[in-house]
Amino acid sequence: MTAIKKQPIPSLSPIDHLLDLAAEDMQAVDAIIVERMQSSVGMIPDLADHLVSAGGKRLRPLLTIASAHLCEYEGIGHHKLAAAVEFIHSATLLHDDVVDISDKRRGKKTANLIWGNAPSILVGDFLFARAFNLMVETGSMGALEILSTASSVIAEGEVQQLAALRDIDMSVETYLEIIGAKTAALFAAAAEVSPVLANVSTKKRNALRTYGQELGIAFQLVDDSLDYGGFELSLGKSVGDDFREGKMTLPVILAYANALKTKDEIAAIFWRRVITEHNQRDIDLDNAITLLQKTNALNDSLDAARTHSDLAIAALKPFKASPWKSALTELAAFVVNRVH
Amino acid sequence: MTAIKKQPIPSLSPIDHLLDLAAEDMQAVDAIIVERMQSSVGMIPDLADHLVSAGGKRLRPLLTIASAHLCEYEGIGHHKLAAAVEFIHSATLLHDDVVDISDKRRGKKTANLIWGNAPSILVGDFLFARAFNLMVETGSMGALEILSTASSVIAEGEVQQLAALRDIDMSVETYLEIIGAKTAALFAAAAEVSPVLANVSTKKRNALRTYGQELGIAFQLVDDSLDYGGFELSLGKSVGDDFREGKMTLPVILAYANALKTKDEIAAIFWRRVITEHNQRDIDLDNAITLLQKTNALNDSLDAARTHSDLAIAALKPFKASPWKSALTELAAFVVNRVH
Repeated sequence: MTAIKKQPIPSLSPIDHLLDLAAEDMQAVDAIIVERMQSSVGMIPDLADHLVSAGGKRLRPLLTIASAHLCEYEGIGHHKLAAAVEFIHSATLLHDDVVDISDKRRGKKTANLIWGNAPSILVGDFLFARAFNLMVETGSMGALEILSTASSVIAEGEVQQLAALRDIDMSVETYLEIIGAKTAALFAAAAEVSPVLANVSTKKRNALRTYGQELGIAFQLVDDSLDYGGFELSLGKSVGDDFREGKMTLPVILAYANALKTKDEIAAIFWRRVITEHNQRDIDLDNAITLLQKTNALNDSLDAARTHSDLAIAALKPFKASPWKSALTELAAFVVNRVH
Repeated sequence: MTAIKKQPIPSLSPIDHLLDLAAEDMQAVDAIIVERMQSSVGMIPDLADHLVSAGGKRLRPLLTIASAHLCEYEGIGHHKLAAAVEFIHSATLLHDDVVDISDKRRGKKTANLIWGNAPSILVGDFLFARAFNLMVETGSMGALEILSTASSVIAEGEVQQLAALRDIDMSVETYLEIIGAKTAALFAAAAEVSPVLANVSTKKRNALRTYGQELGIAFQLVDDSLDYGGFELSLGKSVGDDFREGKMTLPVILAYANALKTKDEIAAIFWRRVITEHNQRDIDLDNAITLLQKTNALNDSLDAARTHSDLAIAALKPFKASPWKSALTELAAFVVNRVH
């Protein structure tokens, strides 16, 4: 469909080290996830299972687990919090797919396509409520505060993104604000709940919060670049999803800014037509990719992702060297190299 | 449209006494509600305000306030919990209207009709998250447990109702299970959080929980009967909404059971056509009402509501006589006489 070159996926993932370290914990987290999505109302586990058990890398709960070890936490509360984080993430995915009228996620049909919008909305609500049940069980008011605040920030980010859809004049600041809320807030919260549970210093807590926030921004920047190809996704979103929706992301912001700066009237008219007027033809995705490459907008977006990944790694400074610190460092590097 | 006789609304509402007693508290609750629906993302307060500030009687937060006084609670945590209860209720209404594709609520256009489905879903999520923020601020893990559990039960009830839509063979038990979850669970939780906050005996806590649960069932039974007229609603749902959706409620269950029992094949075929096959003509609502009256199904449903209202009142026995106890007794009577 598109002219862009695909890069091969490395056969050994750089987060294998982290996955190895966290294997036992993640098994416990998975068991909680499976147990807590059960309900006597059969449609709930069916739909939840379709999403939760399928394909995801469990990046956010992995963050909770790794942070707990970095803080030398010795309890088991991090398992429930990690499951709660994944439930919140799953709830937002179910609702997002209804909001975006998506038909594919991780290479599979979306729940809203199979079961309809109504069950997707309600099962999202169910998972969200169950997330809070799990938090309550850990008895950590601090974790509840962090994750309930993150949840309202996520919703704000989603609404802001919706309100700014097809706004070709969106600023880089607004874009970073939106992804900071809709994506990074949950990464930050996932990393911050463990130091709170482990009762370590505010310095370490803030360090992990920053790590999560910067990692989340890097993750979303890469995700938004991947929408215009450049990397092959094994089971990710399809190339051009954002473009077809008229969603403003950094590559488009940069390419449009370049068109204005260089007085490239043809390019400026192109972006306004496909985004603001949302008037697109089949060939336009290829045209967009050509423009993004010509103006270096994709590379600049990936550079921005690298900067945030570096900030994430730098934030880990208060922690002494350990296999977990290395693993989190590798994770931040991995996110900008290729992840979903 | 329908042939049914309308009864006049009494000019002095029997809950004026309760509203009077609770006036100062409800002012504080309203202030919290208005403050906490704010967001720098303008669409959120606009949409939330449309729903939250408009028309509702604030029955559920009123229950939290009255229960707090009945338990001689002396703090101010009940204000935040009452606001949280109203936020959870508002979130479910926003999502329900998307799920049911409703265009009217409390006599006004629904948010989904004005702003679209996507903002309604996301603002619902926002209000739900803010509800948990408020609970966290009270520091009551007990309240968090009660309301997070209620939230997952509500979602289960909604999904169960959805799965049973147009199921003419639904049993009375299944119906009571559904309304016990989708409606009564929040009434029960609204009444139960205050005794937990006030740290009174388990006996009193259970009493208020039962009061809320029975009141909620009575409320929904009346609501479901009102769908087929019989009472005028000042600002309520339109007559026939459930019918047109093919939603199974007690009046229809009883009328269909009567048709089977009396071997009234014409009536049985009618119900299967309009509900199961969802094949309806304009005149069918009138036909349905005629059948419901002929078989006494509406009166029997209202009798069932009265039974549950009586159970609610009886549950208050552990509390000594007080203006608040009288007010809650009147509230339960009011709910079955006419309320929304």
